[in-house]
Amino acid sequence: MKADIGHLKICYIGGGSRNWAWVLLQDLGFENDIKGTVDLYDLKNEAAQDNAIIGNRLMAEHNPGQWTFKANPSLQDALMGSDFVFISILPGDFEEMAVDVHAPEQYGIYQSVGDTVGPGGLVRAMRTIPQFQKIAQAIKTWAPDAWVLNYTNPMTICTRTLYREFPGIKAFGCCHEVFHTQELLRTVLEEAKVIPENTVKRDAIKTRVLGINHFTWMDRATYKNIDIFPYYQAFVAQYGETGFEKPGPLTWRNDYFSCAERVKMDLFRRYGCIACAGDRHLAEFCPHSWYMHSPEQVQTWMYSLTPVSFRIEKREQLERKARAYREGTEKMEPVASGEEGIRIMKALLGLEDIVTNVNLPNQGQMPDFPGGAVVETNALFSRDRIQPLVSDGLPVDIRSLVMPHVYSQEGIVEATFERDREKAFRVFSHDLSIQTLSLKDARKLFDDMTTKTLHGQWEN
Amino acid sequence: MKADIGHLKICYIGGGSRNWAWVLLQDLGFENDIKGTVDLYDLKNEAAQDNAIIGNRLMAEHNPGQWTFKANPSLQDALMGSDFVFISILPGDFEEMAVDVHAPEQYGIYQSVGDTVGPGGLVRAMRTIPQFQKIAQAIKTWAPDAWVLNYTNPMTICTRTLYREFPGIKAFGCCHEVFHTQELLRTVLEEAKVIPENTVKRDAIKTRVLGINHFTWMDRATYKNIDIFPYYQAFVAQYGETGFEKPGPLTWRNDYFSCAERVKMDLFRRYGCIACAGDRHLAEFCPHSWYMHSPEQVQTWMYSLTPVSFRIEKREQLERKARAYREGTEKMEPVASGEEGIRIMKALLGLEDIVTNVNLPNQGQMPDFPGGAVVETNALFSRDRIQPLVSDGLPVDIRSLVMPHVYSQEGIVEATFERDREKAFRVFSHDLSIQTLSLKDARKLFDDMTTKTLHGQWEN
Amino acid sequence: MKADIGHLKICYIGGGSRNWAWVLLQDLGFENDIKGTVDLYDLKNEAAQDNAIIGNRLMAEHNPGQWTFKANPSLQDALMGSDFVFISILPGDFEEMAVDVHAPEQYGIYQSVGDTVGPGGLVRAMRTIPQFQKIAQAIKTWAPDAWVLNYTNPMTICTRTLYREFPGIKAFGCCHEVFHTQELLRTVLEEAKVIPENTVKRDAIKTRVLGINHFTWMDRATYKNIDIFPYYQAFVAQYGETGFEKPGPLTWRNDYFSCAERVKMDLFRRYGCIACAGDRHLAEFCPHSWYMHSPEQVQTWMYSLTPVSFRIEKREQLERKARAYREGTEKMEPVASGEEGIRIMKALLGLEDIVTNVNLPNQGQMPDFPGGAVVETNALFSRDRIQPLVSDGLPVDIRSLVMPHVYSQEGIVEATFERDREKAFRVFSHDLSIQTLSLKDARKLFDDMTTKTLHGQWEN
Amino acid sequence: MKADIGHLKICYIGGGSRNWAWVLLQDLGFENDIKGTVDLYDLKNEAAQDNAIIGNRLMAEHNPGQWTFKANPSLQDALMGSDFVFISILPGDFEEMAVDVHAPEQYGIYQSVGDTVGPGGLVRAMRTIPQFQKIAQAIKTWAPDAWVLNYTNPMTICTRTLYREFPGIKAFGCCHEVFHTQELLRTVLEEAKVIPENTVKRDAIKTRVLGINHFTWMDRATYKNIDIFPYYQAFVAQYGETGFEKPGPLTWRNDYFSCAERVKMDLFRRYGCIACAGDRHLAEFCPHSWYMHSPEQVQTWMYSLTPVSFRIEKREQLERKARAYREGTEKMEPVASGEEGIRIMKALLGLEDIVTNVNLPNQGQMPDFPGGAVVETNALFSRDRIQPLVSDGLPVDIRSLVMPHVYSQEGIVEATFERDREKAFRVFSHDLSIQTLSLKDARKLFDDMTTKTLHGQWEN
Repeated sequence: MKADIGHLKICYIGGGSRNWAWVLLQDLGFENDIKGTVDLYDLKNEAAQDNAIIGNRLMAEHNPGQWTFKANPSLQDALMGSDFVFISILPGDFEEMAVDVHAPEQYGIYQSVGDTVGPGGLVRAMRTIPQFQKIAQAIKTWAPDAWVLNYTNPMTICTRTLYREFPGIKAFGCCHEVFHTQELLRTVLEEAKVIPENTVKRDAIKTRVLGINHFTWMDRATYKNIDIFPYYQAFVAQYGETGFEKPGPLTWRNDYFSCAERVKMDLFRRYGCIACAGDRHLAEFCPHSWYMHSPEQVQTWMYSLTPVSFRIEKREQLERKARAYREGTEKMEPVASGEEGIRIMKALLGLEDIVTNVNLPNQGQMPDFPGGAVVETNALFSRDRIQPLVSDGLPVDIRSLVMPHVYSQEGIVEATFERDREKAFRVFSHDLSIQTLSLKDARKLFDDMTTKTLHGQWEN
Repeated sequence: MKADIGHLKICYIGGGSRNWAWVLLQDLGFENDIKGTVDLYDLKNEAAQDNAIIGNRLMAEHNPGQWTFKANPSLQDALMGSDFVFISILPGDFEEMAVDVHAPEQYGIYQSVGDTVGPGGLVRAMRTIPQFQKIAQAIKTWAPDAWVLNYTNPMTICTRTLYREFPGIKAFGCCHEVFHTQELLRTVLEEAKVIPENTVKRDAIKTRVLGINHFTWMDRATYKNIDIFPYYQAFVAQYGETGFEKPGPLTWRNDYFSCAERVKMDLFRRYGCIACAGDRHLAEFCPHSWYMHSPEQVQTWMYSLTPVSFRIEKREQLERKARAYREGTEKMEPVASGEEGIRIMKALLGLEDIVTNVNLPNQGQMPDFPGGAVVETNALFSRDRIQPLVSDGLPVDIRSLVMPHVYSQEGIVEATFERDREKAFRVFSHDLSIQTLSLKDARKLFDDMTTKTLHGQWEN
Repeated sequence: MKADIGHLKICYIGGGSRNWAWVLLQDLGFENDIKGTVDLYDLKNEAAQDNAIIGNRLMAEHNPGQWTFKANPSLQDALMGSDFVFISILPGDFEEMAVDVHAPEQYGIYQSVGDTVGPGGLVRAMRTIPQFQKIAQAIKTWAPDAWVLNYTNPMTICTRTLYREFPGIKAFGCCHEVFHTQELLRTVLEEAKVIPENTVKRDAIKTRVLGINHFTWMDRATYKNIDIFPYYQAFVAQYGETGFEKPGPLTWRNDYFSCAERVKMDLFRRYGCIACAGDRHLAEFCPHSWYMHSPEQVQTWMYSLTPVSFRIEKREQLERKARAYREGTEKMEPVASGEEGIRIMKALLGLEDIVTNVNLPNQGQMPDFPGGAVVETNALFSRDRIQPLVSDGLPVDIRSLVMPHVYSQEGIVEATFERDREKAFRVFSHDLSIQTLSLKDARKLFDDMTTKTLHGQWEN
Repeated sequence: MKADIGHLKICYIGGGSRNWAWVLLQDLGFENDIKGTVDLYDLKNEAAQDNAIIGNRLMAEHNPGQWTFKANPSLQDALMGSDFVFISILPGDFEEMAVDVHAPEQYGIYQSVGDTVGPGGLVRAMRTIPQFQKIAQAIKTWAPDAWVLNYTNPMTICTRTLYREFPGIKAFGCCHEVFHTQELLRTVLEEAKVIPENTVKRDAIKTRVLGINHFTWMDRATYKNIDIFPYYQAFVAQYGETGFEKPGPLTWRNDYFSCAERVKMDLFRRYGCIACAGDRHLAEFCPHSWYMHSPEQVQTWMYSLTPVSFRIEKREQLERKARAYREGTEKMEPVASGEEGIRIMKALLGLEDIVTNVNLPNQGQMPDFPGGAVVETNALFSRDRIQPLVSDGLPVDIRSLVMPHVYSQEGIVEATFERDREKAFRVFSHDLSIQTLSLKDARKLFDDMTTKTLHGQWEN
């Protein structure tokens, strides 16, 4: 790695994003250890241009001379010479996502997110994989030595695709779901008066993470010399039925991303390990009869189904905000997001070692999982290397809950690489939620969804 | 192995059986290459005594001087000095089996057999494993070098238990479901006029077998230099909708063990490999919406749900027959069963090598399956050794269909070894068919079934 | 596989061979189950032309209408449409082989064969691998679905190269060293009066074979229900010191390929397993102090160092014979070679299943060996498939004797694929026999050998 | 883990040690984060009593109230309730070690240390393994949940024995050889003026460590964002021939533990990775012709053969010192040793996470090494857990240099567990240095060494 910390180049694929790209801009507002340029590449170049303007203005005001942003309509150009590549794209538009999430409702299948597993996750995978194959080829050609941070969902499948298409890639997937569980565990200790409020950093909560993205588990969680498990057990005993929410304006009743942790606590009560993702993610991986057979049941478990209409609305808000930022009527301020992208870059540059959770092909870190399948575990990030930590594997009962998804993900990747529609349908038909349908209905749903959402991606 | 082919000793655990034990008696009626004694051990010693009388009479008339049978009420005595151990026990009685099969019907879960997977298979496993642990300990103590042939279901779980309890055991599981598929493939060639009728032996149909017992698949099937797959494809095209049955008195309408192969053909049409077990077994491993959501759907697919009342009735017939045999009012005749138990013994004695399918812990024969899990593949049987053949593994889509059962079986074995009722319930709750129930109903069903069928086995 | 047993096409690479090609011709003289054409391809096309003339004449006289032979100067043409490809080439000429074998003698390193391991084997590998890379590419392009039988040494390395260059290849390595040991074991039983002389076929001696080519071991050897090991033990007790040779004109004193089995018996006495290759091969894999530190010691162990002068002389004889055959002054007669090439082809065509020993990449058959390394074990050959048999692995002490060669072979293959001369030297310097030299001498020897024998192969 | 950081109990097996035990005492002189008692157990209880007196006096003067030491003649008593167990025993006495090291000299085999590999290492293993089996049993019975730190050599074999005897043990092996290489790399950066002298801490040099104890390698070494490899390359170019030693009184000419790094630099020049142990260790793992065929050659490479007479002399000095400490005529002062024992304990207690190198059974951290074999790699130490980091494996040429020792170690462990003297000899005879002997001489040496050093250990 030839990176010069004074002249880094980052290529951001999906650089018109109003979400992850802004997170990066805002975090860079504080960043002084490293500097350089960010090439924003996006199919919608104007969106990238907005972000370049916004970013450069933020830098001028808050962190002058450190980072410059440029919308670059050429992927080749944006990639060449890059030390890091970020990927956060939206595979398809919201109309397609509406199909992912809502088409299955006609058959009684509800989905709280619809981007990871289930009918939505699988069909989204089918249109995302071809795009990630192209991205992997571009990286192979123009920036083979760059470190690649993926933020796009379905995380497991995107990461798997990058490696299957270009085995030499230095890619990994970043997700913050585990962080939120660390925050919850901090709260657990605060509630138990073990630590004072608002004093302990999120990453002082040490955890052993294992599983797959959005269905990740902890079999160890400690703070200093304290085992958090007994405290979590007491917490679950207290709040398992009533749910738990921190005081504040956002609750599961008014915020689609909030939950009262009831699913998570129920899984702990039964399995003895801490499931570490938002309840709306966890619920999707379980038999739908447990937490999601109807919108009413979802309410009982005190979380929400995220409708795509909400995403559309939120998108419009963000676009308005983008316009205001671009035109200068509003100002983007640096905000520490709590995300680790920049810390990870700095670790890979050698500036500090960190151990955190990451999505990578299984090369031994999950001894009981198939080799090559993408798993989420802890890893050490150090200069120009990531080394996953060998875990003990999941308990046999959790393994039996997680594994069907692993094989489903492996299957949809292979079917899509082969552009084999029938194989894709077979994998689709095995999904937990689809299994409840007759094959005829499963087929109708599959045809309906793929017809409406696969526009040409399968043709190349 | 010190076996002397002129003075062999076989220990038959479950020696009062009116099924597999009689098959052995009848097959031994033709056997002249090896001779010896058979100790019949059974918890119901009188049943073993009947079989000893029957067997000795058959020998006297048809194969004098070759084999003698003795009911032996001491397991230690029966095992000591044995060269071979057969195990075919009925884990529990028919009342318990009635619970296995029919209790779930109250929740809309139908089972065609109920002894392998699903609620019936899992609860049966919970009461069988403790018995097999005891058998494994007895073999370890009194006949550690004997070859052990298991015929008891759930096959996978019984074999797994033997090895987990006594890792040095020389055990394997035998099942004839694959043979019946070989017979079907022979018929396919006969129908296609590729071979004349009734001329080709069953085992001239060469197959590559892989998967798990009762959900085994063939990715190769040949007769001499002929690939059978294209013929099978044509056969499926012709009979897939109408079903196929050989002319004769037994049809799926009057015989619980018959089927019209529609499930098997449907799986081929979709997956491209030949599922090789009876349809009533195959259907249980699939999402129940496909072939078994209701008795009516089962009819459509032209096979039957086997009620335990039928088994009870059949049992009574067999007991009447046993009495008649014992009292000499009827005579048992030697019949070539088509089973391979004796051929396998002879192969293990060195008299001829054979390659056939067998259930064994995975030690590399299924590279994509977890190590140690019991799988069914081909193996070479030669003097004092069995060597499984390395396969290419299952296609990714079939793997995703089979694997949930593998992890479920691994889970129920561990839970039962640990006598951990909660873990057993968790595994139970993941079963394909149980997933459709609410957790509350799943729990009620589990409690109901285990209360009625686990009598003391979990206490030791 | 589309092969038609009445119109097969074989491509023979190295078709001018006076050794393996003649074996094939002579064996085909008896063959009636299959027929077709053999395209003989050789860099020396005239030699192939001779063989075509010889073969066609033999067929005309002994097996008319079955097989036709044709020298084909185009590899593409020879490969296209082939069902089988035989490879038996001489990598380099005898001058180069003289360097392989004799150059190390200046440093006190003697080699009995010099084509498998040791300085000779490694340098031979360095010039063979590039040729096999080209062959693999040609097969990939023109006959990707053909079965490929390799007879060329170094067997392990040639087979490894084929798979590394073209992972989808259907290749395997055939070697008769194990057969000779089966013959020896038959003699052991004859000597012990267990079987009458000359009645039992070689392949009735059933063995479990494991290890690597030319350093293969048996941990089981049986004839019918008889364990041969105790008889072999008695045999070794009797002949271990004096040596054993069957009566006949050829002895280790006048025939370079003969031996008195002393090395083999010594290894059995010490390790308890039967080493199954000629002594001259076995000795090369062991520390040279054991059986080969000097020509005198070799004599003591009653086998020979094969000088290349002998090979040259033999070659000249064969060329004279070839001329005589071609000109018709002498006639080639069909001779049953005892080789299995034709039986294997017939097995792969589906005409009969056989279990025999074969060289294949490790895919689980040797659980204690690195994956992908080429190992020699038993395998089942059936229509269009080879399935290795899973073995128990080698005992830990034999493993420690064999493994350094496995890593050495893996190393020289990688170094040659990368055309990395320094890496090749490092691997060379680790060889058992080279280790006794100073690094300076090792380097001089390496430079000397490679300068004289690598003519352009490393340039492409 | 129930450890209370204010009331820890440490059991020190070999508590009379004047080496590692003193290191612990001196380090504890600075330790305030944790406190408790240390039970010193030693076969020579008086030596432990000395150390208790010395330790308690040091604490009274420098760190009052933190740690108390007690000689405990009962192993059971010393172990019960322990949170940590240290093991640093001398397997046998110096007379036996003299045999290990010097007996082979009569056959021209020199050893620089003689406690890890080679004849000395293997015979030492044979008498150490039985002792470690007993220790493992004691820990299993009396302190199964304690963390066990082993310092005894042969490190690999001791650690392997602990796990083979008690698979549930929480043991690992600590060695400081890698630390010294980190110090060398710091010097390299200092020499290159990249960092100022004496400013950077040893563990700021980040390395990726892989291999086996005393033959460990680094394929990455960085300081902050600086890759150290190019600087090391320049360093080797400059000092490879002349050797390098830091200014100071100790040089390889007067100190047996010093070296001029020529072996290490030569290995780098040839293999491209940094071997990270003292030269006297590295040299023993290589073919003896390279660095150790004679005492003169050893001189050329600027390191020393450590004679046992020196150890005896040093021992006597230490005993005199112990007497002086005990009697109060001299005072032990706290000294920061640079060892990591206490940091590791604190990490396992949860007080800070650290990543360092450690010896553990391979569970995936070295994907190209046999499972279960003890390897040295990096691992994360956190509260009550150690997770090794998955490495990329060794380059193929280094692997071929290291692996023979791995198989040798696996072999000697199995042979000793089975108390199979012949198997032990076979493994012994495969050792690099022994291979140069005739089998007869190898046997004489083996018999001589084992007769003189195995006193009863093999009898139980």
